[in-house]
Amino acid sequence: MLRLFRGNLRRYSTVTGPNIVKTVSELRKWRIEQLKQSRTVGLVPTMGALHQGHLNLVSQSLRENDVTVVSIFVNPSQFAPTEDLNTYPRTLDKDLEKLSQISNPESDLTVFLPSVQEMYPSGITLDVNEQTGAFVEVKGLSNQLEGAIRPQFFRGVATVVTKLFNVVTPERAYFGQKDAQQSVVVKRLARDLLLPTEVVVAPTAREPSGLAMSSRNDYLSPEVRQKAGIFYEALSAAHKLYKDRNAETPRNDILDAVYATLNPLTKPNDDFSIEIEYIALSDKHSLKEVDSVEPGSGAILSGAIKVPNKNGGKTRIIDNIFFD
Amino acid sequence: MLRLFRGNLRRYSTVTGPNIVKTVSELRKWRIEQLKQSRTVGLVPTMGALHQGHLNLVSQSLRENDVTVVSIFVNPSQFAPTEDLNTYPRTLDKDLEKLSQISNPESDLTVFLPSVQEMYPSGITLDVNEQTGAFVEVKGLSNQLEGAIRPQFFRGVATVVTKLFNVVTPERAYFGQKDAQQSVVVKRLARDLLLPTEVVVAPTAREPSGLAMSSRNDYLSPEVRQKAGIFYEALSAAHKLYKDRNAETPRNDILDAVYATLNPLTKPNDDFSIEIEYIALSDKHSLKEVDSVEPGSGAILSGAIKVPNKNGGKTRIIDNIFFD
Repeated sequence: MLRLFRGNLRRYSTVTGPNIVKTVSELRKWRIEQLKQSRTVGLVPTMGALHQGHLNLVSQSLRENDVTVVSIFVNPSQFAPTEDLNTYPRTLDKDLEKLSQISNPESDLTVFLPSVQEMYPSGITLDVNEQTGAFVEVKGLSNQLEGAIRPQFFRGVATVVTKLFNVVTPERAYFGQKDAQQSVVVKRLARDLLLPTEVVVAPTAREPSGLAMSSRNDYLSPEVRQKAGIFYEALSAAHKLYKDRNAETPRNDILDAVYATLNPLTKPNDDFSIEIEYIALSDKHSLKEVDSVEPGSGAILSGAIKVPNKNGGKTRIIDNIFFD
Repeated sequence: MLRLFRGNLRRYSTVTGPNIVKTVSELRKWRIEQLKQSRTVGLVPTMGALHQGHLNLVSQSLRENDVTVVSIFVNPSQFAPTEDLNTYPRTLDKDLEKLSQISNPESDLTVFLPSVQEMYPSGITLDVNEQTGAFVEVKGLSNQLEGAIRPQFFRGVATVVTKLFNVVTPERAYFGQKDAQQSVVVKRLARDLLLPTEVVVAPTAREPSGLAMSSRNDYLSPEVRQKAGIFYEALSAAHKLYKDRNAETPRNDILDAVYATLNPLTKPNDDFSIEIEYIALSDKHSLKEVDSVEPGSGAILSGAIKVPNKNGGKTRIIDNIFFD
């Protein structure tokens, strides 16, 4: 089902499944050919371990563009030395199989599978103090919320997204709303660096329990995946309070509604207990905390909690709801 | 002689002088047309106030590419609040006249004249602490030499060059060797961010006295421009010492040769006196100071001095010689 793209620029129409491109130079040649043929290109940047959320983005891109690139690259620079770069789930064969199933001979799906050397030609170390070379920073949007807990995360994301946008130069790039701050950072980045790419944010895909889909959910047992649905339930309760009130609502009322659902689970418990890292109500563009939310301006309600994982440790899960 | 490019993508062949493009979106359309016609594009990024050094870069680009873009944009983010953004020489009419003289009907020279709003769609302030949005930093190469004295300079340069490269996507971009550190930073940037542009560094153009050409030489009287040739003379003396020895030469011998020529001029003097900011011998790639230079590995001998300007103040001049 899979073919290696070997720099041959004719259009494949009789073979099913995605092309695979492994080098920047090959992808660039392919891209120029698309441009000369006036075919629009969509990009879905991923770190692999594809779930239904990713596949929804790919399907949307296939519908909205002539050809689609799915990049699979576990980006070292967005991991802190203490984080899970080495154990991050890598499931390439399954990923390619899933992509084959949703693509078709006419869909022209290309999978970009670069090595670390291709993406970081000068090398990359996780220790920020030892890093040299070009990095992209989105000031004002990278140090709050997720960035407060993961100080180098958005610098790593912004840098790798810039590289991918430079190589693929997509007309549209697709990101999931689950990573709400990431989508705000990437939109600002594309605008500020004059990249010719529209950043499209698609709804969060959810497991039956309501838990936001994430590759890191692989770290959780089926029971915890079921029970962790309480996080979305808590955010939804706050959203319902706001919708029912249909008027300016103070931040504290919103946060109280979230905590009312979650607090009972924070007590140590053999069965299932959680830690709340943060719950925040933020402006949709500046990501600054807001004192209240009102219809028209809206806000993002987001948070992170830790739940027990299969290895006896804790796994962070993040989620959010956009308030209109 | 000059025409406004109005998004009409046919090739102009009967009118002389450069096209003028003022918006990112127009330039992007023009660029796609070049790509579809398989015409190669050279870029000469400038801040205007064009001198023979710039014109040499433009001529080289015209020879080496099918079409050439000269950007004229005084980039705010590379100026500190204390520096000369407001008084930096702006000579657009003369610049366009000079470009008309070296281009011809077949040369397809395009002048990109963006506003600050086009290049910084989210706005830009000179106070680094107040800046928000996407910036590019080239770590390890930005804080020594010129970067030690102008801490935000290379971040500003790297950011605007990334933007220009994203808009123009040139096959080749031309920089003068006078700004040696800038050329090292930009080469690293293009490589690391996977930009498809070859960075070409051309020899420094010099005034008859030997003074490196610079738009800021406009701040100097004819007499000072003559006498400031001593800087290049000093660097050349050190270079000659190395060439004559034709063997590994200690850093101190090199620097002593420079200081031997310059030191007599550092004493207060009604006629002409200078201040030496720094003289450094650096590795060509890492820009780290080296203890010696030897044939094969080479080094960059660079420095900055201040000379009296027409307004009774001081103007910095920089220069360098590459040792092979």
